[in-house]
Amino acid sequence: MPSVTLDISMSLDGFIAGPDQTLAQPLGEGGERLHEWAFALKGFRERHGLSGGETTADSDVVEESLRNTGATVMGRRMFSGGQGPWEDDPSADGWWGEDPPFRHPVFILTRHRREPVTKQGGTTFTFVTDGIGSALEQARAAAGDKDVAVGGGANVAQQYLEAGLLDDLQIHLVPVLLGGGVRLFGHLGTWQIELERTRLIESPAVTHLRYRVVK
Amino acid sequence: MPSVTLDISMSLDGFIAGPDQTLAQPLGEGGERLHEWAFALKGFRERHGLSGGETTADSDVVEESLRNTGATVMGRRMFSGGQGPWEDDPSADGWWGEDPPFRHPVFILTRHRREPVTKQGGTTFTFVTDGIGSALEQARAAAGDKDVAVGGGANVAQQYLEAGLLDDLQIHLVPVLLGGGVRLFGHLGTWQIELERTRLIESPAVTHLRYRVVK
Repeated sequence: MPSVTLDISMSLDGFIAGPDQTLAQPLGEGGERLHEWAFALKGFRERHGLSGGETTADSDVVEESLRNTGATVMGRRMFSGGQGPWEDDPSADGWWGEDPPFRHPVFILTRHRREPVTKQGGTTFTFVTDGIGSALEQARAAAGDKDVAVGGGANVAQQYLEAGLLDDLQIHLVPVLLGGGVRLFGHLGTWQIELERTRLIESPAVTHLRYRVVK
Repeated sequence: MPSVTLDISMSLDGFIAGPDQTLAQPLGEGGERLHEWAFALKGFRERHGLSGGETTADSDVVEESLRNTGATVMGRRMFSGGQGPWEDDPSADGWWGEDPPFRHPVFILTRHRREPVTKQGGTTFTFVTDGIGSALEQARAAAGDKDVAVGGGANVAQQYLEAGLLDDLQIHLVPVLLGGGVRLFGHLGTWQIELERTRLIESPAVTHLRYRVVK
């Protein structure tokens, strides 16, 4: 049974982006710190059209996610940093240029209707205006027997978690205290959600914690 | 060189107590979930005058802390749940009865002066009214060549962290999302604090993450 997995980098103090997110600084102040571990990897860099990098225990975790994921759901802000009508959005086709690293269908939650966009390498962007349930349904259908990744941001992750639609969390726990920014778990209600830790992979750069949501 | 270590249980979403802390419910609603892993241990139970329990990988972590810690610093609320003058505090001698589990000197941060209290088994309670620096100095002197533990709560932990006085963090990461309560890292400033993960011990119940604060 394919899994719906939230796969995201988080600081030890719970942030997935720094403070003061802007179009020029989409990860917020200091937020790129959370992704240094991935930027250092050869496989990640290749996917983003960059040379260099190394192969470490972290590489296996990234490669596994790329291999197992058949579709991704994400929020509008994570996709482009923008809001409002698409024609006013300077990054309306996303951050990633003509050959985005996904190489599978991506479903973007938005209130603004738009035709799908096809990029190189197997990435398609489909814009979903009728809610998280619909986006997940479309992503499941597109993923076939592969997993669906919920990519973020925090607001979208929380909506899926609260709706009971997440099966697994893969948290890449980065050894830093950001001190401020966007919390992954900032606005959950006050009921407990039990988790079962199903895997743990460590490297000097990051701790990969995998949990199953107990339902 | 003895270490000053914050040693504390935290949910994956960053809480060290649940919401609605009261005298009758000092850990807040659902907060005891964060300590189930410890309550299950034979060694922990013995220290608290309880029978039963088991010995697991978690036992070693607890035993090590008990063995290496020569003094503890904690906040007034963690000590008694109270505030204001001591004569009005129903738990003025702490939560732990006549034979508290510490068995070493404990320094309590408070604005209300009070003579020290000596309990059974080597535990003394000393009340410090002149700030976190003084409390740490007294705790260091009492601990000798052993470590000083900063026990919490969150406010006290944050003060020591911001003042650059913490050497190590030992976070017992509990696989649950509490959804609300007291955040361990709720009110840090917006500068980054780099950490180096120095140890990781896992059990089904909890992940023990040890970090060194990079100074």
